Amino acid sequence: MSLVDDLVAALGADRVKAHPLELRVYDKDAGVARGPVAAVALPESTAEVVACVKAARTWGVPIVARGAGTGLAGGAVPTEPALIVALTRMNTIHEVDLENRTAWVGPGVINLDLSAHTTPMGFHYAPDPSSQSVCTIGGNVGTNAGGPHCLAEGTTVAHILAVEMVTVDGEIVELGGPAPDPIGLDLRAVVVGSEGTMGLVTRVLVKLTPNAPDVRTLLLAYPTIEGAAETVSQTIAAGIIPAALEIMDRPMVQAVENFVHAGYPTESAAVLLAEVTGHPAAVTAEAGQIERIALQAGTTEVRSAVDAAERDLLWLGRKSAFGAVAQSAPDYYLHDTVVPRTRLVETMTRLYEIADRFEISMLNVFHAGDGNLHPLVAFDGRDEGARERVMEAAEEMVRVSLEVGGSLSGEHGIGLEKRDLMADVFSPIDLDAQARLRDAFDPDGALNPGKILPHGSRCYDFGMQPPLSQEPAL
Amino acid sequence: MSLVDDLVAALGADRVKAHPLELRVYDKDAGVARGPVAAVALPESTAEVVACVKAARTWGVPIVARGAGTGLAGGAVPTEPALIVALTRMNTIHEVDLENRTAWVGPGVINLDLSAHTTPMGFHYAPDPSSQSVCTIGGNVGTNAGGPHCLAEGTTVAHILAVEMVTVDGEIVELGGPAPDPIGLDLRAVVVGSEGTMGLVTRVLVKLTPNAPDVRTLLLAYPTIEGAAETVSQTIAAGIIPAALEIMDRPMVQAVENFVHAGYPTESAAVLLAEVTGHPAAVTAEAGQIERIALQAGTTEVRSAVDAAERDLLWLGRKSAFGAVAQSAPDYYLHDTVVPRTRLVETMTRLYEIADRFEISMLNVFHAGDGNLHPLVAFDGRDEGARERVMEAAEEMVRVSLEVGGSLSGEHGIGLEKRDLMADVFSPIDLDAQARLRDAFDPDGALNPGKILPHGSRCYDFGMQPPLSQEPAL
Repeated sequence: MSLVDDLVAALGADRVKAHPLELRVYDKDAGVARGPVAAVALPESTAEVVACVKAARTWGVPIVARGAGTGLAGGAVPTEPALIVALTRMNTIHEVDLENRTAWVGPGVINLDLSAHTTPMGFHYAPDPSSQSVCTIGGNVGTNAGGPHCLAEGTTVAHILAVEMVTVDGEIVELGGPAPDPIGLDLRAVVVGSEGTMGLVTRVLVKLTPNAPDVRTLLLAYPTIEGAAETVSQTIAAGIIPAALEIMDRPMVQAVENFVHAGYPTESAAVLLAEVTGHPAAVTAEAGQIERIALQAGTTEVRSAVDAAERDLLWLGRKSAFGAVAQSAPDYYLHDTVVPRTRLVETMTRLYEIADRFEISMLNVFHAGDGNLHPLVAFDGRDEGARERVMEAAEEMVRVSLEVGGSLSGEHGIGLEKRDLMADVFSPIDLDAQARLRDAFDPDGALNPGKILPHGSRCYDFGMQPPLSQEPAL
Repeated sequence: MSLVDDLVAALGADRVKAHPLELRVYDKDAGVARGPVAAVALPESTAEVVACVKAARTWGVPIVARGAGTGLAGGAVPTEPALIVALTRMNTIHEVDLENRTAWVGPGVINLDLSAHTTPMGFHYAPDPSSQSVCTIGGNVGTNAGGPHCLAEGTTVAHILAVEMVTVDGEIVELGGPAPDPIGLDLRAVVVGSEGTMGLVTRVLVKLTPNAPDVRTLLLAYPTIEGAAETVSQTIAAGIIPAALEIMDRPMVQAVENFVHAGYPTESAAVLLAEVTGHPAAVTAEAGQIERIALQAGTTEVRSAVDAAERDLLWLGRKSAFGAVAQSAPDYYLHDTVVPRTRLVETMTRLYEIADRFEISMLNVFHAGDGNLHPLVAFDGRDEGARERVMEAAEEMVRVSLEVGGSLSGEHGIGLEKRDLMADVFSPIDLDAQARLRDAFDPDGALNPGKILPHGSRCYDFGMQPPLSQEPAL
């Protein structure tokens, strides 16, 4: 008998993967790190997830939950030989309750599929990561995913009312509920963003957002990135909270234009996409106000989309950004930090300086409204030393973000990538609080071990904290 | 030496209360239950809170954090002789950051004082419990307080970015942070609503909300409560999310009119207060739409306030509701449950039936937009059997709310009042998840013992769950 035998007995042979070539598909996410996979299970029900957990526990194998694998921070990449429980087949929209504006969905439901299903009913699921056409609601829950429209609507945690979760003991718990103010201890919010370290989420109760009665999208071009950033600050200072405020720099505009030919102004230093939604009268007034602010800030071109087709064209470049980069270089490394909106320009200047110094090619597209930067480095991993140079620059870039008062992660999670930087942000006592919670739910460290908390923080209570540098390299 | 000696050494004699007459002031909240108090401490700094916690732990005395004591569910009422740590003197607004729209405040800052301080700067603190002129931010955090304007803005948890908290070991942790997407495990949200069972919150980072560019308040009178409820449903179905939607029934309208003479239409069966905020053009359009819906639903009177003075007059009755009831009877008991908006009328009918059967006087004022009911029972506790009859009716009313798919608590917390009903809502496994979290932060049960989780749920792991009826009466 073996773990694989037990899994096959529970799920059938076609939904258990154990061949090295099959495992290779599940050993990384959309980031750069790879990890060791013991086996892969593809359950189709909560009961099957329970069976997977029990089998893994019997054989002492850690468990890593996985959605579509579009994460960028290594959250779904195992640090030791693990059972990957891929929840992509649990993709049923179980129940849509329009009166209460909620839906129970499986964790494998694709983000955009949910909105496509409910849009004709007048509602959509608000968080819209760039990967929304492939990423899953379960993965969004695991990383507390954001997206362009999270500026006004909040990230995933603001849209999850309850989860059904299988614990490390194979018990099924329901956390949260449909009420606007959850009663008892609010464990729902802790599960969102916990990257599968608290349990495996098997059903999700999401909030549905009414479709906006009117939408206006503006594309604004600038001779300097400062002008775009100035428009963002002044817009928010004017009391407008647009549905989205996205900046792309010249390298990114050129890359997407080469890729999708959306007609973006490639000669500009920066392009700002601003979208306002709401009552038609307010939309017209606010769009006009943003246009006036943009002209003051030196915009050289204003395009306005009033219907869905024009809007899709303006968004096409933004949404194709990562595809465009993938076309231009075989590998890319994408950062995700948040800096105070007021220090955007200064941070950008320092990031460009780092990129120049390391001689790497950096493209930028970011959620400017909430200061969520996404500097993207394109490279060829086959070049001698390229990967190392990119990673070294990456760490400097994250530290710059922290220095200006920013946060480690905007929306991609901590995963492997930023785990050891957590100690730069949290004190040992703060980390200990997180470790206590985690130990309460997973005392043996069987759920996605080695994630979120830096090595050693879980031993804090016992005075055994080893130096971070002793962490074995992956 | 004694607990009181240690406290006096740390805080000075004038900020430690131990005389029975002084303790009496701290043995209840605004609800009906009283509990035993060992001593009261009034710290003025985080360091003093640490000293209080350490002293209480040395002497084996449990610790109950307390704000202004305006809670209604007994969250601040001790179940065994406890040290009450009243945080009302930690009432400094430490720092207002307008660019990032946040403020660090002490837990003792009064809710309305914070908004009064920031309103001239263009911002306010959105959650507005009825007690906002006296209740504290710390108490709001403890109960995850709501208020009329939480319909559009969300309850307290949506407005708290970070907390500084003293743990049961006297350590100071900071949970959460200024970034829109908190990194690491989101313990901030668990602390909100945990009624002092995770630690003592000593500083709070709140989100500030821009003042609305325009506001319109409507008072709508109806010959039936169904008409008011119909207006609420149709308004929300039309895609409008008003800033507030409050219904008062005839007994309540009459009580407030007797009390404050706000000119409310006392002959109506129900009064609906609807407030829309936003861009002036949208406000005008939406107010017009609500008025048309109300006329369709049979409203007999529409009053509209466009300036602050008129608006204050329309709100005066609503905000005086509890004072009005206090004037009409020496005691009152206020419920707080949430039912699906679609079952409001049916629930109200059943609540009136229960009140009639128990021959008690019930008045209603509620957050209709999110189905948060507040049936209020006025009585005279000196009447033979009155209190028992009220409590019996209360339990029936809460069970009706649960039967129609509602929740135990909208915004007042669980406290003592609803603790033993938690087992009607959560399975033993669900309760165990909450108990695990709590045990991780407070293994000895020293922080507000006997709250939130029903008796026995913390022993679940050991198979020792006693029947709930064995819980000793308070």
